[in-house]
Amino acid sequence: MNLNKIILCGAILSSIILGAQTKEKVTSHVNPFIGTGAADGSPLSGNNFPGATVPFGMVQLSPDTRSTPDWSVACGYNYNDTTIAGFSHTHLSGTGVAELFDVMLMPFSGAIVKEAEGENAYQSKFSHKNETAKPGYYSVQLLDYQVKAELTATTRAGFHKYSFPKNKEAHIIIDLDHSMKKSDWNTRIIASQLSFPNNHTVEGYRIITGWAPMRKVYFHAEFSQPIIRNHVKDGGNSYDNARIVNGNAIRAILDFDVSKQQEVFVKVGISATSIENARLNVESEIPAWDFEKKVKEADAVWEKELGKIKIDGTDEQKQIFYTALYHTYIQPNTLSDVNGDYPSADFTVKKASKPYYSTFSLWDTYRAAHPLYTLIQPERSADFVNSMLAYYKVFGYLPIWQLWGQENYCMIGNHAIPVIADAVMKNLPGIDSNLAYEAIKNSAMREHPGSPFGIWEKFGYIPENLKSQSVSLTLEMAYDDWCVAELAKKLVKIEDYNHFTKRSQFYRNLYDKEIGFFRAKDDKGNWIGPFDPLKYGANGGYPFTEGNGWQYFWYVPQDVKGLIGLVGNDQLFTKKLDTFFTLEDKPEEVNDNASGFIGQYAHGNEPSHHIAYLYNYAGQPWKTQKYTADIMKKMYNTTSSGYSGNDDCGELSAWYIFSAMGFYPVNPANRMYVIGSPILKEAIIELQGGKTFKVTAKNVSDQNVYIQSAKLNGKTYTKTFIKQSDLDSGGTLEFVMGSKPNKKWGIRTEDRPAN
Amino acid sequence: MNLNKIILCGAILSSIILGAQTKEKVTSHVNPFIGTGAADGSPLSGNNFPGATVPFGMVQLSPDTRSTPDWSVACGYNYNDTTIAGFSHTHLSGTGVAELFDVMLMPFSGAIVKEAEGENAYQSKFSHKNETAKPGYYSVQLLDYQVKAELTATTRAGFHKYSFPKNKEAHIIIDLDHSMKKSDWNTRIIASQLSFPNNHTVEGYRIITGWAPMRKVYFHAEFSQPIIRNHVKDGGNSYDNARIVNGNAIRAILDFDVSKQQEVFVKVGISATSIENARLNVESEIPAWDFEKKVKEADAVWEKELGKIKIDGTDEQKQIFYTALYHTYIQPNTLSDVNGDYPSADFTVKKASKPYYSTFSLWDTYRAAHPLYTLIQPERSADFVNSMLAYYKVFGYLPIWQLWGQENYCMIGNHAIPVIADAVMKNLPGIDSNLAYEAIKNSAMREHPGSPFGIWEKFGYIPENLKSQSVSLTLEMAYDDWCVAELAKKLVKIEDYNHFTKRSQFYRNLYDKEIGFFRAKDDKGNWIGPFDPLKYGANGGYPFTEGNGWQYFWYVPQDVKGLIGLVGNDQLFTKKLDTFFTLEDKPEEVNDNASGFIGQYAHGNEPSHHIAYLYNYAGQPWKTQKYTADIMKKMYNTTSSGYSGNDDCGELSAWYIFSAMGFYPVNPANRMYVIGSPILKEAIIELQGGKTFKVTAKNVSDQNVYIQSAKLNGKTYTKTFIKQSDLDSGGTLEFVMGSKPNKKWGIRTEDRPAN
Repeated sequence: MNLNKIILCGAILSSIILGAQTKEKVTSHVNPFIGTGAADGSPLSGNNFPGATVPFGMVQLSPDTRSTPDWSVACGYNYNDTTIAGFSHTHLSGTGVAELFDVMLMPFSGAIVKEAEGENAYQSKFSHKNETAKPGYYSVQLLDYQVKAELTATTRAGFHKYSFPKNKEAHIIIDLDHSMKKSDWNTRIIASQLSFPNNHTVEGYRIITGWAPMRKVYFHAEFSQPIIRNHVKDGGNSYDNARIVNGNAIRAILDFDVSKQQEVFVKVGISATSIENARLNVESEIPAWDFEKKVKEADAVWEKELGKIKIDGTDEQKQIFYTALYHTYIQPNTLSDVNGDYPSADFTVKKASKPYYSTFSLWDTYRAAHPLYTLIQPERSADFVNSMLAYYKVFGYLPIWQLWGQENYCMIGNHAIPVIADAVMKNLPGIDSNLAYEAIKNSAMREHPGSPFGIWEKFGYIPENLKSQSVSLTLEMAYDDWCVAELAKKLVKIEDYNHFTKRSQFYRNLYDKEIGFFRAKDDKGNWIGPFDPLKYGANGGYPFTEGNGWQYFWYVPQDVKGLIGLVGNDQLFTKKLDTFFTLEDKPEEVNDNASGFIGQYAHGNEPSHHIAYLYNYAGQPWKTQKYTADIMKKMYNTTSSGYSGNDDCGELSAWYIFSAMGFYPVNPANRMYVIGSPILKEAIIELQGGKTFKVTAKNVSDQNVYIQSAKLNGKTYTKTFIKQSDLDSGGTLEFVMGSKPNKKWGIRTEDRPAN
Repeated sequence: MNLNKIILCGAILSSIILGAQTKEKVTSHVNPFIGTGAADGSPLSGNNFPGATVPFGMVQLSPDTRSTPDWSVACGYNYNDTTIAGFSHTHLSGTGVAELFDVMLMPFSGAIVKEAEGENAYQSKFSHKNETAKPGYYSVQLLDYQVKAELTATTRAGFHKYSFPKNKEAHIIIDLDHSMKKSDWNTRIIASQLSFPNNHTVEGYRIITGWAPMRKVYFHAEFSQPIIRNHVKDGGNSYDNARIVNGNAIRAILDFDVSKQQEVFVKVGISATSIENARLNVESEIPAWDFEKKVKEADAVWEKELGKIKIDGTDEQKQIFYTALYHTYIQPNTLSDVNGDYPSADFTVKKASKPYYSTFSLWDTYRAAHPLYTLIQPERSADFVNSMLAYYKVFGYLPIWQLWGQENYCMIGNHAIPVIADAVMKNLPGIDSNLAYEAIKNSAMREHPGSPFGIWEKFGYIPENLKSQSVSLTLEMAYDDWCVAELAKKLVKIEDYNHFTKRSQFYRNLYDKEIGFFRAKDDKGNWIGPFDPLKYGANGGYPFTEGNGWQYFWYVPQDVKGLIGLVGNDQLFTKKLDTFFTLEDKPEEVNDNASGFIGQYAHGNEPSHHIAYLYNYAGQPWKTQKYTADIMKKMYNTTSSGYSGNDDCGELSAWYIFSAMGFYPVNPANRMYVIGSPILKEAIIELQGGKTFKVTAKNVSDQNVYIQSAKLNGKTYTKTFIKQSDLDSGGTLEFVMGSKPNKKWGIRTEDRPAN
């Protein structure tokens, strides 16, 4: 990796005073190679891509190191790979499923080799030595072709700069067939078109169905130099110097004459609604051929958005922190065009007055990413919510895992509910609270795939023989119900409040006090045995989802006191937590997704994420401090293996951002953060209305991870949580850290987090 | 069949004076059961459906006698079947591939049988004794349920009347999963939705891909009685009293209380663009609950459109003729909504000021159906052409086989070219001739699937080793090229005229004078052997398409004189025709589609259709008279086996309409009709601008099929063809018929058709 170069570069460019203690630009700390590939070659390190994008953009212009990416390289790029297949315009960051990869371009020099026209043709070797990535910019030397490729992006357009060798033929491939492995998710290009309206322009579309049902992707590409000739293939059909080709496996090679001017620039507008809008998008966002200007603009927008939190800490901490923040900003993605057109859930085109967003990986992101957005991106958070509400109006219930505006029903629960309830409770601007309530209530009442509310209400739990993943479902549905109840209370809907509060306690119905775990029952009310709390489930066929009985035991964020009550008392509860964090046993089969272990704790997957914070509830906050510091130390670093599992659309990143600042939303919808171990010397959060909230940690170091004392706005603070209202008012939270636990701080009943 | 009842009914309702000799309504002669099923159970008789539709409508509301129709019951209905699965809103008439079948409703009475919820659940037995069909109306008694179902339609909406027994539970199924057999054409419902906005309304959509790529079908259904309860299934998921269901295998059972009112009416609007437009369509076209009124209106529009030709003849002739005319009017289909919205080729929605049409089965229909439309539906013909031109502007070339606005590349050639060239040459109103020329030229120059113009121009024929179906392609492409040349001439594009005229002669390059047939060559110019003129090809892998060497030998409609020259002289040519019509030999394998034989002549498929008319070109018009009369006698009747093969979107019907009147467009784009054997006493064609053209056949009878003499506008007429200009002026063509050939009439060189 060329981190030194990036940091150096950042330091030179640095021009904005961020705060008393940091003079360099925050973008200089972002290292887009973090999370791009595990050192051991395993698929589980972030699954982040290094390409060019702007915050929450439609376009993520990034290299694909495989011609047919699958789940193991879901973002298209693996740091361990040695060849690049091309640069496509749309990518997912950190998901467990490969998708998008739309409109791939690939420059090459030299003669066209007819025999090499398969999917692997014209790949090029590359080296990390000749590769650079920073926010909004990526470049690489394509070693086989002596072509330097540089990429930048705006919200809805990609900007390519290809520098060819002078005395060789110059070509650019434009590939509409490139996608995830077609055998995965029954992926199929239903129709596509490539046309050449003039010798500087290529446009077209593809209609593709795969993980996301029926995506329409239109594009309009402008080339800075004339296309001398084109060679198009559509499966077995070849067309030379075509004007227009319709097909479903279209790849074109374009010829250029670079003898006078070696650089060819390409501006590519993307749209989910029409070619006209793709053209409008690129003409609006990249009106001129000034590549450097767009690189600077992309950097500036990153600087502004990343600067919403300014930190002091070690260089390593800054790099991890700002790269994590960068990763949280990659999605949700703008889906609407500059004129507001967007593809509605019903496959029509509708118009929005504000940006319409998609890519909602909610099972992951409701936990920490959305709470982070509400904190530092309140207006965008409102747009996310309003996008989901517009979707609800057409679809009848809220998204579960929404991609390119369509539902794929990945994972369980209805975790748009906590996101929306939280947004309304936090008074984010411009959300219709009645519509929001209607949406969350209907999403908790109308049966839909994965959400069998009939049997939920009938049995008070999900019987495994009627619906698999029943324990995880029961626990997560109970939490969502608590969120509905919470908003019902605010809106004084008493009957609903009582109804959903009752449902939020259904978790109790699967607690087996004999063995001290949540476990599956059948529809007769009998425990389904035998039960092994170590045994893993994946995504069906077992009561637990991407986890085991140990990990799901703790999933009652709405009623941790109730959970302690089930176990018996604080001592038994903390003892069980101690066991959890130290029990190294594994069953023979561990779910693919499980990684990042500390005992049974598995940071690579989300069900564990809040668990280290639970000690606070039972009066042993120093253990929360110990384990959260431990997790940050062991599960995050600055290499391509920087994450301990898929970043899952920024969720692992968001966990770090909160935890590094010293607090975390255990219940993401109760306007309360549980205090862990602040590892940054200082963090200043820019809040709505110009206020700031500052967190400092005196004496903090690798060893000094234990809170000795704290002050809020100058007054002694012994609570092990902090409320949203404290943040909203602005202020300062000062910690004093030490190497030994202060077992007296934060242990009184009144210091513990309320539910 | 209950033809007597229909005719009686027609007679009673009759109120329009059609002409001196006919007082009954023309609709009374339409028998929608013709062509609905071969007596021997073979799939080849028309493949017409008996349901309710209006001319050129979007909706064809018709019973489906199979739950998963395949090619053998491509229209959904087979007269030999004994059960009805339901009534769906869209159907193809006479195609060789099953498609559409959107939004199926099925009423049933009695209890819901949970176990029977498979695809065959709730089918009902029916009997032709309790079944009625006439233009715009269909009814049937569902014997298993004592439900009478009556159907009528407007352009974009279906209107159902279900009369339930009084004392039983009443249900209506609404099925969004019903489609052609899913294993055919990789058919897949990508997404669908069913919602219940209130207790009188159901709406939704399905996105389906199959033979037509990616069709969007939206609907809005209003029920005259409240829906008491609904039961929705989506594959393995069940929902009771759902408000909204999204899925991809959705079927709902709706419960009604008919104790006070046994009839339940349902109005269903269909749209290819949105639910809103489906609602607008049905609200505009069926504003009230007056079922009888809509039946009368449908009848009236049929009466008006079928009345464009008024005939005198036997009752059987009238029934065949008007049913044939009815079948030609079933498509092309309106695809635009009442507000002009339509799904464009690029999967966006565009707006048209006039109706936008689809369903272009051009390889079939360019021969006789489109020439018939230009004659009696000139304004609609212009709309057909303008729809194809709008499509061209987006797609880059004209449709080949276009369905629901999308190309499926079925069959060969680019036979939108003759249709459009003909329309411009005939000065149909409102066509931009420059755009039309651009479209046909580009469709003849831009390579696209099935149209390898590069090798066409390089070799002067299609080499079979480079592209299969090469002989059929060569012959048909040469014809299309002649059409381009013809329009180029009119528009004084001399260079193009020369270019395409040269290409139109490429047919000669595959004539093997040693054996006297067109046969395949490879790209080295060698004949590919062995050659058997009897051997059939289907749709690939052989030089001939849905035919054999004998049938394709005659396919030079643009240059019959040239073809005669290849054979040698008139005598050798007519001798070869004689052999063709008498050689009964068949190879072991006859193409599935081949049927309707007279010697090698196969009326069940289109390549033969013009051949009987070719005797005129070589001075033996009495043989044209003999064979055309023969074909009409043998290949058409009033039973469900009324056609000798698939009606192919009205093509076999259009052949009959022309031939029965006594003339046929051998070259569908040269404004000339070749005279055969008029079998009707009289036919009066209503032309543009109020003019009429009358054809009479004095003494005509089953035996008297030979023309003895003729007069045009009172003057002796000896030509064996008639020009479009003669028709355009209006007038009368009088034939005198006899039982013996008049071998002197029409034999002089100047009496023969020019090319």
